[in-house]
Amino acid sequence: MGRFDVDVIAAGIEAQKRGLLARGITLVESEQPRHAPLAEKLLGRLWDRTGGALRIGISGVPGVGKSTFIDAFGMLLIEAGLKVAVLAIDPSSRVSGGSVLGDKTRMSRLSRAEGAFIRPSPTSGTLGGVARKTRESMLLCEAAGFDVILVETVGVGQSETMVADLVDIYLVLMLAGAGDELQGIKRGILEVADVLAINKADGDNARPAERAQGRYRAALHLMRGADAPPVLTCSALEGHGLGELWQTLEERWNTAKADGSLEARRRKQDVHWMWRLIEDPVLDALHRSAGVVGLEDGVRTGRRSARDAARVALEQFRWPPKT
Amino acid sequence: MGRFDVDVIAAGIEAQKRGLLARGITLVESEQPRHAPLAEKLLGRLWDRTGGALRIGISGVPGVGKSTFIDAFGMLLIEAGLKVAVLAIDPSSRVSGGSVLGDKTRMSRLSRAEGAFIRPSPTSGTLGGVARKTRESMLLCEAAGFDVILVETVGVGQSETMVADLVDIYLVLMLAGAGDELQGIKRGILEVADVLAINKADGDNARPAERAQGRYRAALHLMRGADAPPVLTCSALEGHGLGELWQTLEERWNTAKADGSLEARRRKQDVHWMWRLIEDPVLDALHRSAGVVGLEDGVRTGRRSARDAARVALEQFRWPPKT
Repeated sequence: MGRFDVDVIAAGIEAQKRGLLARGITLVESEQPRHAPLAEKLLGRLWDRTGGALRIGISGVPGVGKSTFIDAFGMLLIEAGLKVAVLAIDPSSRVSGGSVLGDKTRMSRLSRAEGAFIRPSPTSGTLGGVARKTRESMLLCEAAGFDVILVETVGVGQSETMVADLVDIYLVLMLAGAGDELQGIKRGILEVADVLAINKADGDNARPAERAQGRYRAALHLMRGADAPPVLTCSALEGHGLGELWQTLEERWNTAKADGSLEARRRKQDVHWMWRLIEDPVLDALHRSAGVVGLEDGVRTGRRSARDAARVALEQFRWPPKT
Repeated sequence: MGRFDVDVIAAGIEAQKRGLLARGITLVESEQPRHAPLAEKLLGRLWDRTGGALRIGISGVPGVGKSTFIDAFGMLLIEAGLKVAVLAIDPSSRVSGGSVLGDKTRMSRLSRAEGAFIRPSPTSGTLGGVARKTRESMLLCEAAGFDVILVETVGVGQSETMVADLVDIYLVLMLAGAGDELQGIKRGILEVADVLAINKADGDNARPAERAQGRYRAALHLMRGADAPPVLTCSALEGHGLGELWQTLEERWNTAKADGSLEARRRKQDVHWMWRLIEDPVLDALHRSAGVVGLEDGVRTGRRSARDAARVALEQFRWPPKT
């Protein structure tokens, strides 16, 4: 069975062994077709052990101090006796091969902590593919007994809103600015955020952070009314506000568990991911099918109508793809 | 050749005959497979005559007085010697068979005007399908010599943002409210709007409209910075502000023509529609393929993993579909 013996990996994950968890994640991340049935078998084997963790997505504007935040926040949870896994979604990592500094440097305390597991972003695939792999890695971490999964988005563009489809609570980190805080925030991010925290609320920045808190509350009330997320302040550097933040997150999770909204959200996410897993390979094959690049060029330069190009493309397309 | 003789229809549209324009639109709206090659032939025949009109999308919050606005604004253009076509995107019309009052009642002056052509929303198909048909109807109106096409969105949900992919300028109508104007506006609508107009700026409402103008300007500046759209006020009922609005729209169009951004926007839209025309039928077939409903149920109730369901669905799918 070699490196990916499903029985060995499944038993290792159940026994909470880090090395075998890491190997299982490598298996679900693999893009080799021969690994797909093994990955499916592994996920099927561990299916009943998944779902137990509080899944938290964390995004933040550039410069917000996300690594320092996750390091401090993760340590707070570790010290409370919880096991914490940190996963990342970074579509750019397939170019750079991972973050510049490396996760061990970025999260110096957490990376040495006993109860923590840090896994960098998958380094291949589209954003959707990276997110799917992260989702399955999350399930394996749950089977390995982790209590809290922090899913960090590093990339730009749509990764922030996509992570909302992965997690129970989507936390967005902000900075106090000069009144133009809303500018530069990604499209839709404030519409899917569950909790906002203004970081670096320390020293000279404490007062501006409080004023920013007021402005965010007003703006979110305008946007979302009664559905507006809470806005907190914290300082990952000095450590304050993190306890209150955890309390807020935990209370929301317990409420959602009690009233059934957590279950409903997760089921909806499962169906969403099912459709991504169905549609993405087909769309991918469509976009790579013979002649489509030339057709697109014809439309882009105005030589061909969209309808004409589409007819030709659909005539040429075949599923399952010819091998 | 019967009712859909492409030679007759093409010649009639070139000769600016309303009846044959209407018949051509009925042809491109048809969902009968045997009509598809005829529609494609018609569009191909008229291709070189398309692209000459200023394409304006118009959306508005409920109660904004959209019909009155289009009636008054359209008449202003007619009186300036322009030929105006009004098309609608209303996905709900496939249920109701069209708007309750009917377009003739909704736009009483414009519907009797010599230079105007009003066409209700296609009454079948998905939102994407309705928008595609509207796009092709727009091309036929251009071939028939119309100078301005007003594409009205009646529906709810995503139709507002989809229309931005159809037009040169996307105009969003607003109302003055009690300080909570931003609430209830559809996701993303303010991010794609090119021009905002606060309607009903008349009588007791004139001052609130000006205050709303200030608030919108501030909010849009926060959201979009230098890219913030202009915010105007108008009263379709009293007729004021419409001339300034037209001037703003025309100036933006002329600038976009001169600096090449209009051409770039339209080419990008053409490629977008090519992909919709390619992807939508395939995705539609995927969603209707055998067994997929049962698989989705299995995922929704937690009996089956997303990955397992997706594998089965992809094994069963065939393109071209078996007939």
